[in-house]
Amino acid sequence: MQEKNNSFDFVDNGGVTSPAGFLASGAVAGLKQSGNPDMALLYSEKDCSFAGTFTSNLFCAAPVRYCREICEKSKTVRAMVINSGVANACTGLEGYNNSRKTAEEAAKILNVEACQVLVASTGHIGDQLPMDKIVNGIRLGAETLSSQGGAAAARAIMTTDTCPKELAVSFTLNGKKVTIGGMCKGAGMISPKMIAAPHATMICCVTTDAKIDNALLSTLLASSVENSFNRITVDNDMSTNDTVIVFANGCSDVEIKKDSAGEKIFAEALNMVTGHLARAIVYDGEGVTKFISVEVSGAGSDSDAEKCARAIANSPLCKTAWFGGDPNWGRILAAAGYSGAKFDPENFTLFFDEIPVIKGGLPAGTEESKMAEVMKRREFAVKVDLGEGQSSATVWTGDFTYDYVKINADYRT
Amino acid sequence: MQEKNNSFDFVDNGGVTSPAGFLASGAVAGLKQSGNPDMALLYSEKDCSFAGTFTSNLFCAAPVRYCREICEKSKTVRAMVINSGVANACTGLEGYNNSRKTAEEAAKILNVEACQVLVASTGHIGDQLPMDKIVNGIRLGAETLSSQGGAAAARAIMTTDTCPKELAVSFTLNGKKVTIGGMCKGAGMISPKMIAAPHATMICCVTTDAKIDNALLSTLLASSVENSFNRITVDNDMSTNDTVIVFANGCSDVEIKKDSAGEKIFAEALNMVTGHLARAIVYDGEGVTKFISVEVSGAGSDSDAEKCARAIANSPLCKTAWFGGDPNWGRILAAAGYSGAKFDPENFTLFFDEIPVIKGGLPAGTEESKMAEVMKRREFAVKVDLGEGQSSATVWTGDFTYDYVKINADYRT
Repeated sequence: MQEKNNSFDFVDNGGVTSPAGFLASGAVAGLKQSGNPDMALLYSEKDCSFAGTFTSNLFCAAPVRYCREICEKSKTVRAMVINSGVANACTGLEGYNNSRKTAEEAAKILNVEACQVLVASTGHIGDQLPMDKIVNGIRLGAETLSSQGGAAAARAIMTTDTCPKELAVSFTLNGKKVTIGGMCKGAGMISPKMIAAPHATMICCVTTDAKIDNALLSTLLASSVENSFNRITVDNDMSTNDTVIVFANGCSDVEIKKDSAGEKIFAEALNMVTGHLARAIVYDGEGVTKFISVEVSGAGSDSDAEKCARAIANSPLCKTAWFGGDPNWGRILAAAGYSGAKFDPENFTLFFDEIPVIKGGLPAGTEESKMAEVMKRREFAVKVDLGEGQSSATVWTGDFTYDYVKINADYRT
Repeated sequence: MQEKNNSFDFVDNGGVTSPAGFLASGAVAGLKQSGNPDMALLYSEKDCSFAGTFTSNLFCAAPVRYCREICEKSKTVRAMVINSGVANACTGLEGYNNSRKTAEEAAKILNVEACQVLVASTGHIGDQLPMDKIVNGIRLGAETLSSQGGAAAARAIMTTDTCPKELAVSFTLNGKKVTIGGMCKGAGMISPKMIAAPHATMICCVTTDAKIDNALLSTLLASSVENSFNRITVDNDMSTNDTVIVFANGCSDVEIKKDSAGEKIFAEALNMVTGHLARAIVYDGEGVTKFISVEVSGAGSDSDAEKCARAIANSPLCKTAWFGGDPNWGRILAAAGYSGAKFDPENFTLFFDEIPVIKGGLPAGTEESKMAEVMKRREFAVKVDLGEGQSSATVWTGDFTYDYVKINADYRT
């Protein structure tokens, strides 16, 4: 049977509770001085297959260690508890025990097995979770779980984010509707490099009512994360807490099988959700006023393409020039030149969106005013062709602004 | 003969003209819109042995390419022309020819061989040198060459620098006085990785009246640069133009021979000069208000020690926290954790100067107010012990401030 692979629908105001069988809530546990919601619960009415990717930071947080264990030992999960305000990172054995206790308390309250509960935390590093507030927050969250609760959950996981980030996409397979929803947070300490299990504090939950086994879900998630969250940077600082979990509860009665046409469609929908959410993190990055897609092609290897794209995307001089609207392409060339990617400067080509800037390593003759026009756009692409080979890579980044400094110099004051 | 190795004198207001036989000047060629001096000449009354280290950026500037050739083909040099305002980088064959022409014109005016003249440029990338202004600047500079001209030259090479940077040190060997002088510039695009030939635009000239052959001078310079300029970062952006040249004219009648006691003393004095000048660049780094020495010890390898130190020294989150006076040590741990250095987080130790912050991967129990006191210092050390081995590395860095953004978002406006 030939499946259509281009019939995706965006769900109005969609999020993690758009797929059938998922409930969520957001509550005030009292972890944030602001009094804003800081406790998100996600709950599935049926057992879920699942997969996760986690930070590769050596100082991974306690909830990351706990979730990795759950990923190894549990075949199904039912719920996830996410608190904001306290990262529970660099908290030693006490921190680990608090993550475990969080899962256990949630399990009791939600009447599921403890090994079916995942946990995530985001916020300040180094403080212990105040467990009385955590447990009270879980109780409050459990009382308000709802199939309309996705938006509240997305709001409760925010830290320096200025807006919640969520999306849901649906498609039809074998005559039945399948939905994938997602929410994420993250604005600073964003440079994820997650490994079959990612890095920045970004936290993302993806839900789907498809039926799909853990192994295939894990493979599809790893690939999807590699091309979404692992391709963004705000500040080149990899977090201790990055976590992406995907839950699949099968409530659509549609099974996604390996090497099937359905797998391709599901993977495409999953990539739409993770790609959208990853870009949303950069759009809402700390102090970010511009979204820049650094697209490197013509590299001799994937590694060279990525090195070059990351060097440009993370260059403080490029990022401040973009903030200033200054088409200072010399800084881009300098970053490419120190990136470690191999290329011949005489074959280097650079475009700002559709505007040629450098050809053959030399100015293309475009008036600077035309380049400056591109720099005024809210979103533009820096396109590099290294002229060496066929490999390419894209990294999404933001500009570097006064507000970035303000947010991070005043983080706790 | 036993040499004393601790009898160094700092020359009052010392610089590149402190060693015997060196003249210098600073002139206004008209390259800077500000009308400030932008042309420095350095001239030796006698032939000099010499050595250079240069940026490892693939987009190395025309003067860097030209100087590398001179390093290969010339046995002695007599002069150096340094312009600020225009970097002559990414300028193709025309740029290269302009560097060559600069050297040739200077040679005529100074009555030396063209192959005895070195050139360096710093400023905006992408513009061609205005050769009429360059030649006129050299003429003006030649007319005012003086054994008191070091300070004027040091001022003429400044770009976003707020102050000139120079130093001279002298010592006695075999009853005769030897002097080493130096000047440098650099405030942004500072993350040199110079190879026997560095990276940031930092430019440095070192002069000495010792007699020393090119091979030994080159060896000593490479080692000295590795432990000075290659250990600093302002913004992690390696320049296209980094250049360090050392000139030795022998006017002291003291010869420095390989494997002699004199070599050790000379090397020590050279390291004092390059170390001082390198630190001065960070002190005067764009927008920098604090000088931070990131000192990593206990690493399993030199490479791990350097990776860890560089990750912390370049972390935007650490640098903004230091600006804010926030002892946010979680950011330091996160940077160490993603640096790629191998270590066990449970053996991680962190001090801010004399104040213990982390022991065994956990808070040392120091009150945050005590840590915050350290953060108020103009200069402090972030001391990490990875608990893995015996290797260590230090990287000097600055904080990340509103002024950094201002300077670089407004560079040309």
